[in-house]
Amino acid sequence: MFSPIIWRAGQLQLLDQRQLPKQETWLAIDTVQQCSQAISDMVVRGAPAIGITAAYGVVLAARQCYAQHAEHWREAMPALLRQLAQARPTAVNLCWAINTMQTHFAAVIGHPEPALLAQAQRIHQDDIHANQTMGALGAQLLPQQAKVLTHCNAGALATGGYGTALGVIRSGFAQGKISQIYADETRPWWQGARLTAWELLRDGLPVTLLADSAAAMLMQQGKLDWVIVGADRIAANGDVANKIGTYGLAVLARYHGVKFMVVAPRSTFDLSLASGAAMPLEQRDGRELLCFQNQTVAAQGADSFNPVFDLTPAALIDAMVSERGVILQPDAAKIAAIIS
Amino acid sequence: MFSPIIWRAGQLQLLDQRQLPKQETWLAIDTVQQCSQAISDMVVRGAPAIGITAAYGVVLAARQCYAQHAEHWREAMPALLRQLAQARPTAVNLCWAINTMQTHFAAVIGHPEPALLAQAQRIHQDDIHANQTMGALGAQLLPQQAKVLTHCNAGALATGGYGTALGVIRSGFAQGKISQIYADETRPWWQGARLTAWELLRDGLPVTLLADSAAAMLMQQGKLDWVIVGADRIAANGDVANKIGTYGLAVLARYHGVKFMVVAPRSTFDLSLASGAAMPLEQRDGRELLCFQNQTVAAQGADSFNPVFDLTPAALIDAMVSERGVILQPDAAKIAAIIS
Repeated sequence: MFSPIIWRAGQLQLLDQRQLPKQETWLAIDTVQQCSQAISDMVVRGAPAIGITAAYGVVLAARQCYAQHAEHWREAMPALLRQLAQARPTAVNLCWAINTMQTHFAAVIGHPEPALLAQAQRIHQDDIHANQTMGALGAQLLPQQAKVLTHCNAGALATGGYGTALGVIRSGFAQGKISQIYADETRPWWQGARLTAWELLRDGLPVTLLADSAAAMLMQQGKLDWVIVGADRIAANGDVANKIGTYGLAVLARYHGVKFMVVAPRSTFDLSLASGAAMPLEQRDGRELLCFQNQTVAAQGADSFNPVFDLTPAALIDAMVSERGVILQPDAAKIAAIIS
Repeated sequence: MFSPIIWRAGQLQLLDQRQLPKQETWLAIDTVQQCSQAISDMVVRGAPAIGITAAYGVVLAARQCYAQHAEHWREAMPALLRQLAQARPTAVNLCWAINTMQTHFAAVIGHPEPALLAQAQRIHQDDIHANQTMGALGAQLLPQQAKVLTHCNAGALATGGYGTALGVIRSGFAQGKISQIYADETRPWWQGARLTAWELLRDGLPVTLLADSAAAMLMQQGKLDWVIVGADRIAANGDVANKIGTYGLAVLARYHGVKFMVVAPRSTFDLSLASGAAMPLEQRDGRELLCFQNQTVAAQGADSFNPVFDLTPAALIDAMVSERGVILQPDAAKIAAIIS
């Protein structure tokens, strides 16, 4: 199972997604500070992948604290973990993973690294298993000869492996149910053109890229059955924060009678938020929009609006798939019944 | 009045829009073949600007034919003009300008260049006047403190000068009615980031760029009053061919109660088409989508879907502005009443 996150010989190694598809560079991460920076800089991205990376970051933090104050390592942890938790704001999996790791601190005896590493690896493995389960569940919803569109990258590169939205597409394709895979290029970071295309082609799945603005025309021409996306945070009522452009696709899908599926593991649900109203939606530096590989594309002096996530109300979602099961027309009651 | 098209000392000069905003390079065009190529290669683009360029192209063709067969120059013209007419398929202004120029062939005595040049310059001047008229008419529709979004470039660079959609924005801004100008970056050719931002900033109008996929979020957050776009071809019933992404914006605008305005001169109407169903919608080379300045962005091996125009049904358009007047909720009867 390909994973963009590897723990090897006491070191965290991350596939540098900023360099894809041009080159496969692996960055070695030895400290929790480097780990936070790698998340902020989008060496690794995608909500589940950020969570898994953070879990390994907790292992690195514990190793650092233990080296400095063996007896009192737990006391030095909160400051480091606070910084890690703030590396990016929207994906709730980041805080979920840190909290999950923290529940194991009390039981640790002696050096914390072996026990915490086992927990981080379990989070990693659980994510892969969840993706495989979701892939099978989501694929059941697809018709034969399905024409599907995905946005951003919710694949192996965004998770521990296999992917959420791309897990459904991998599973559906393996079953012979998918006749056409479209991927939005996904401005401004090109996750579709660079990452989704890279990992699908790597596995022998054909993919057709389009400008984000061309998706409406595909729908108008009857060339789409399902839009399938991941999520960065899901509120208790089913509102979804995901890559900028997701909301517009959901409105367009509803208008055209195209179905809309959100695929995300338990760790992406934030039941502390009643709705999406209080969801933190990251805005990033306008240079991501105005420049390309340090070359300015836009006219000098232009201002920018660069939100990288938007909010899709639950009412626009036809199916929400987690490893706990499929929720059709998600709402607070249905989510409460299977997500706890 | 700034124009991207200049006739000077017997030569057609075109501002090379492929080089903007980095550099202002003017290409000298001496033959109708060069003129066709410049249109195909998008040295000049935008429906009215393509029409004006073609009108000057007819002057060049006549000069070439006259040099070869002074007495029979008219007989050699059709082959050259057929090629010119096919330089790009969607903008009807191209054929309109060639046809308009042809109506003057019969009356020419002696060398055709002076008489035809006068006609081409008249087409050019008429376009500028039409844009100023449309600018004033369209601006009347805007509320005070209007927040507007435009897509692609329907400005001075797309016309003889002043612009269609940007003419309305220039006029509204001059009247103090516009508080915020947003521009979609407009993939894959970046007309918004490169051209619209360049020409608005050149005139001192502030502009905020966004990814095409972020427009829906602006609407969701109540940050837009009007979407204002140009057109490449308008059918008798009001269906509009325009830059890819226009249709999606129109659907999103209707969903959010944002108003949608199309601004285009008489020369953009194609009354020979009852509806948009038979509208020719250009698809361009996938490299425009997969590469940036000859560097590959996308993963190698990805297929592409690169339509550069889409079709917006008249029912989604709140106001259609031409130099003949404003049509609210356009339909075949209203269009027939003022466009002939």
